[in-house]
Amino acid sequence: MIRTALISLCGLAMAAASCDRTEQSASSGDAVARHAAAGEAIEFADTLSALAAKIDAQFNEPIVVPAPKDAGGGYTHEQHKRNAKTIYEAGQLYAFTGDERYADFAEKLLLAYADMYPDLPLHPEQKEQSPGRLFWQNLNESWWLVYAIQGYASIRGGLSSESLEAIETSLLTEMTTFLSEGSPETFNKIHNHGTWATAAVGMTGYVIGDQDLVEKALLGLDKSGDYGFLKQLDELFSPDGYYNEGPYYQRYALMPFVLFGQAIEKNEPDRKIFEHRDGILKKAIYATIQQNYGGLFFPINDAIKDKDIATTELQYGVAIAYELTGDPGLLSIAQAQGQVVPTEGGKKLADAIARGGAKPFDYASMRLRDGANGDEGALDILRASRDPDDLAVVVKNTSQGLGHGHFDKLGLLVFDSGHEIIRDYGAARFLNIEAKFGGHYLPENNSFAKQTIAHNALVVDETSHFNGSTETGNTFAPEAGPFFVSEKLQATSAEIDTAYENVRLGRTVAMIKDAAFPHPIIIDVVKAHAEDPRQYDLPFYYNGQLVETNFEIAADPLTRSPLGSRNGYQYLWRVGESDFLDGVTQITWLLDRRFYSVTSSVPDNTKVVVAEIGANDPTFNLRREPAFIFRARAADGVSFVSVIEPHGEYNPTAEYTLDSHSIVKSVTPYAAGAAGLVLIETKDGERVGLGIAGESEEDAVHSVSVDGQEFSWTGPYELFHSQKHIDEGE
Amino acid sequence: MIRTALISLCGLAMAAASCDRTEQSASSGDAVARHAAAGEAIEFADTLSALAAKIDAQFNEPIVVPAPKDAGGGYTHEQHKRNAKTIYEAGQLYAFTGDERYADFAEKLLLAYADMYPDLPLHPEQKEQSPGRLFWQNLNESWWLVYAIQGYASIRGGLSSESLEAIETSLLTEMTTFLSEGSPETFNKIHNHGTWATAAVGMTGYVIGDQDLVEKALLGLDKSGDYGFLKQLDELFSPDGYYNEGPYYQRYALMPFVLFGQAIEKNEPDRKIFEHRDGILKKAIYATIQQNYGGLFFPINDAIKDKDIATTELQYGVAIAYELTGDPGLLSIAQAQGQVVPTEGGKKLADAIARGGAKPFDYASMRLRDGANGDEGALDILRASRDPDDLAVVVKNTSQGLGHGHFDKLGLLVFDSGHEIIRDYGAARFLNIEAKFGGHYLPENNSFAKQTIAHNALVVDETSHFNGSTETGNTFAPEAGPFFVSEKLQATSAEIDTAYENVRLGRTVAMIKDAAFPHPIIIDVVKAHAEDPRQYDLPFYYNGQLVETNFEIAADPLTRSPLGSRNGYQYLWRVGESDFLDGVTQITWLLDRRFYSVTSSVPDNTKVVVAEIGANDPTFNLRREPAFIFRARAADGVSFVSVIEPHGEYNPTAEYTLDSHSIVKSVTPYAAGAAGLVLIETKDGERVGLGIAGESEEDAVHSVSVDGQEFSWTGPYELFHSQKHIDEGE
Repeated sequence: MIRTALISLCGLAMAAASCDRTEQSASSGDAVARHAAAGEAIEFADTLSALAAKIDAQFNEPIVVPAPKDAGGGYTHEQHKRNAKTIYEAGQLYAFTGDERYADFAEKLLLAYADMYPDLPLHPEQKEQSPGRLFWQNLNESWWLVYAIQGYASIRGGLSSESLEAIETSLLTEMTTFLSEGSPETFNKIHNHGTWATAAVGMTGYVIGDQDLVEKALLGLDKSGDYGFLKQLDELFSPDGYYNEGPYYQRYALMPFVLFGQAIEKNEPDRKIFEHRDGILKKAIYATIQQNYGGLFFPINDAIKDKDIATTELQYGVAIAYELTGDPGLLSIAQAQGQVVPTEGGKKLADAIARGGAKPFDYASMRLRDGANGDEGALDILRASRDPDDLAVVVKNTSQGLGHGHFDKLGLLVFDSGHEIIRDYGAARFLNIEAKFGGHYLPENNSFAKQTIAHNALVVDETSHFNGSTETGNTFAPEAGPFFVSEKLQATSAEIDTAYENVRLGRTVAMIKDAAFPHPIIIDVVKAHAEDPRQYDLPFYYNGQLVETNFEIAADPLTRSPLGSRNGYQYLWRVGESDFLDGVTQITWLLDRRFYSVTSSVPDNTKVVVAEIGANDPTFNLRREPAFIFRARAADGVSFVSVIEPHGEYNPTAEYTLDSHSIVKSVTPYAAGAAGLVLIETKDGERVGLGIAGESEEDAVHSVSVDGQEFSWTGPYELFHSQKHIDEGE
Repeated sequence: MIRTALISLCGLAMAAASCDRTEQSASSGDAVARHAAAGEAIEFADTLSALAAKIDAQFNEPIVVPAPKDAGGGYTHEQHKRNAKTIYEAGQLYAFTGDERYADFAEKLLLAYADMYPDLPLHPEQKEQSPGRLFWQNLNESWWLVYAIQGYASIRGGLSSESLEAIETSLLTEMTTFLSEGSPETFNKIHNHGTWATAAVGMTGYVIGDQDLVEKALLGLDKSGDYGFLKQLDELFSPDGYYNEGPYYQRYALMPFVLFGQAIEKNEPDRKIFEHRDGILKKAIYATIQQNYGGLFFPINDAIKDKDIATTELQYGVAIAYELTGDPGLLSIAQAQGQVVPTEGGKKLADAIARGGAKPFDYASMRLRDGANGDEGALDILRASRDPDDLAVVVKNTSQGLGHGHFDKLGLLVFDSGHEIIRDYGAARFLNIEAKFGGHYLPENNSFAKQTIAHNALVVDETSHFNGSTETGNTFAPEAGPFFVSEKLQATSAEIDTAYENVRLGRTVAMIKDAAFPHPIIIDVVKAHAEDPRQYDLPFYYNGQLVETNFEIAADPLTRSPLGSRNGYQYLWRVGESDFLDGVTQITWLLDRRFYSVTSSVPDNTKVVVAEIGANDPTFNLRREPAFIFRARAADGVSFVSVIEPHGEYNPTAEYTLDSHSIVKSVTPYAAGAAGLVLIETKDGERVGLGIAGESEEDAVHSVSVDGQEFSWTGPYELFHSQKHIDEGE
């Protein structure tokens, strides 16, 4: 991976020009904010000249098409990937510039492969049951063809019949046969590996005019439709375009879908592929964009946390979506990405931006249902506004997410002011950093990062959900409860009774706006029902400096010990612990220029444990991050009801601090059967209430009485505004 | 402090408009980068309208001039500060808009004070030996007058003779008499408190035409010139404009100097005050600006680390300096500050920026000599380029810095790519955050933050410099050695033999550019000479994630213990420790998108201790920050010779990593008498040498031979470039 990506961006040699380009994209993480803010134009000419600089640098170098030998990461592996990119890029340059040198260069490379390919046996390092011939696995072979065929398409028109014959017979047909008939287990697989195969074969079919290949790609080898691209479209995304491994893998899986989709649209518009399944391809692209905060993808499951929306796959996604929709909001995403792809779509983006057409992207609160039928839980996103840096909450009510999934059912993530406020650890991996386990997932990814205690999710008896079994996890999903969005109240609920035997977990998260609070606040209700005594741990991985608690923390100043010995607990230091607490706990921390308080109604005899990641980590593989954990033992379940409150301002420039203390005086849950009411009292004597029906009936009436006062409402949720302001006719 | 600053920015009530203004400045820390990048214009009209919104909001409120009662932070204290600001701002608004309402408002306030002041006894809560009447200490009274007199100056012309008489007799003369004759111990003090007093009295003298007051302010009560403003100018700044408490306090002390200086220039141009002492006022302003990295002041001594150059005092400084110099580089500083002051100077800045006159500020490598005569050490700044975010090194070869000074003689700070790379802890204080010890300096400021082990400075026998005595520290300073700056080589040296009895400490730091390295690198030579066995600890507070070491670290996975019990060691956890090492150690970490390696030649039997701040901190007052510490015992001194090397690129967006490993193979020091040579060998077989004469003679010739090869040079330092490149005619 290391060298590839390098090369894909820097050209064979580290030619200055091309590497300048990588320098740009190098900081695109930060660029996201900057470009967007500055609303800069993007010159399509720059995209082309950067490519040209890179390809031109290779004109004087000999073509290198080595006999396949090395496994992934090895020299021949990387060289073949490099060549595919070169064929693609030379083809694009020829298409836009008409400069024959690029066509000739692509042709030379393709002929060299045509010369070698027919006699290639399976790769010597063949991996598992799906080997390739150029590469150790045919996933790489499909990837190679997806790039190469696009380059070939641009130069085909100008080829001599000999060259055309040679390339199509000895290379393209050979390879598509191998990838389809020759590798049924992958080609017919309903999995993104299968999508790479069908995309490669189908796109090639269109270019060389082999409709049979296209049919197989679309409908499976037997053309029954039980397999193939259309089936993959039907099953790999949820009806809302959510991909069940989460956004980090979604943006990767997206690539073959959108490229083949575009090829189908161009060659067989009558198939109306972009309308297939109610426009699932568009939905998948938009869902990928919606799943970011401050330019970084939500770090759920095995995510590299600094992966941002400037990623190549999404650059293609945005270009293609813009061609389909003309949505000016996509232009600001392209600006945030800081560059466009070398395609017609990329050119359209750049031109429209230059015309000043960019509008803010419509970030919104939404429920992204999970599962092919949308009935396997959901990813729930609540945003205080369209501002991508404003307060936002993500509740992970999704299914497991296969092998890359984490055991964090009903897990919570909170973002504000461009930062993570209550964090998800993401993957334990230093991508491409050799010194860290070769850049692969670290052992701690399974032993810590995936475990429930590594998340803002409820842990029962110090055991992870599904006992840490991915196989079990894959067979169950939460039941998504009502999801509601209005100007002042947004709320979502979910439950699951399969994460632990005989325990039902439930979480309701709401974001409310009330005049009693200068900022929107979050209400977080975590419940567990059980029949027998259990221990419950609810972690909050807060990000910042602890400044205030309304209880004593006994921290041993002279020593530390791990919090446990299994299921991820062994990686947490026990930093401090409170006495048994009842009633209302309040914890305040500072991050950047704002304070954050969590005020909670906790079960009797709750202890607050302060922990820090880093025990059992002699090789410094884990980031040191703090958490506070509510810990309670109870015979028949628990409920933790918290207000998460951004407040105040710390201003070191002008040297003042405003509202460093929470304004919440108390949080009190009341119940009447299934219905519940969370009553928040502020220090100013305001009272704000959240009614939670506990069921979805739209027109069911609910009522909870508090010291004689009746709180009644209709439907799943109700916000009861602070009276003072209501009296003032708010 | 809390409410003041609030009010000073938000007006009496939290009027929305005025608080919007604070919202702007709230994020000015980040703004620094943003504004500068975007090169935005600043509308002077916005400055005025923000002020107007704030004052207008008070027109309907009664004037509140309470009888003095409360100590600092209390109600009457804050109300009087508020009123001074209001008088100033109303005056400025009248001057620019001619709107009588503002003049009347300022007049009303001043008359209210004239009515009260004559009968005021000393403040009931009088503090120490220098009490005020409106305030508990007369420092606040001087501050009050500095603001009020500027407001009065703008409205004086339009006043009735009754009002004028009342204000000047009963308030201004009363107050100036009190602050001068009435408070000699402060007025005649050569200290920034004295500067506030002389500025207040002198500025008032000019406005009310009392030349006698001016003379006293300039020359001291006896007009001998042994005291007063001119003497303060001569003694409180070094010849290079460095203020010995460091930049965090320099920007505060700057205020009365520049305001009174400007008044003198306007009223008595013949005094040529801005040429006084070779233009010391200008130098002080420029020195303040130069002492920032990425918009934040160098965090040496008791510094609040997020204090940025947008601070009010420096806004005045920049406006005044621009009027004097017309330096277009100051315009980009004003842009970075994001706003201008409501003065003629502020208007000139805004107008010039609007005309597109801004040029990048000339950040440069420089030595800022410390001490009134420039012979008490120096703050040495090495920058790789004028880019404020480029690689930079600060070596703290300064004197103690009085009560706010830290025990970090010859301490090192390294910055790159907009980040601190090798950090200084700064002050242990949460400014204005009540929950944290009332926002005052925390006890840990003395017990940890000031101690030597909290810095990147050499510690002998686990004891702080000067045995942790500020009094002792104030009496000694390092001897600054040669300072040299050229395109490819920058270097500085300093020594001190008073930090420890019978130990001479020395440090030479160089920044070099050589074709063998893609980035500039830093060479750090730390030496100690002693006659008897001592233990030496050299910490590097690295910022980032440890990724690689060329030795084993034995970290106890199950427990931690403090590194020591005294002098700050008790706050460090012993996280891990190496075996005894000889020869070359190499440690690599990752921060943001770049790798940093420290490759060192260490004394025999050196151990590397990995530590983390946080032991003995049950109240979470300290930030958790890691360090590695070279620890050696030696009979006759030690030398630690390190290459600090930024390298490579980690790009999660495009998924590639370049040059994650250091290219340094070895670092070897050679000596020939006082002269030394540091020879760096790269993994490509390049050899780069740094010659260090060990004395300052410009034309002395030095020579060190390495395996028969002679390295000869003239003068204090010499860079020997990598041969390969020299042969290639670099």
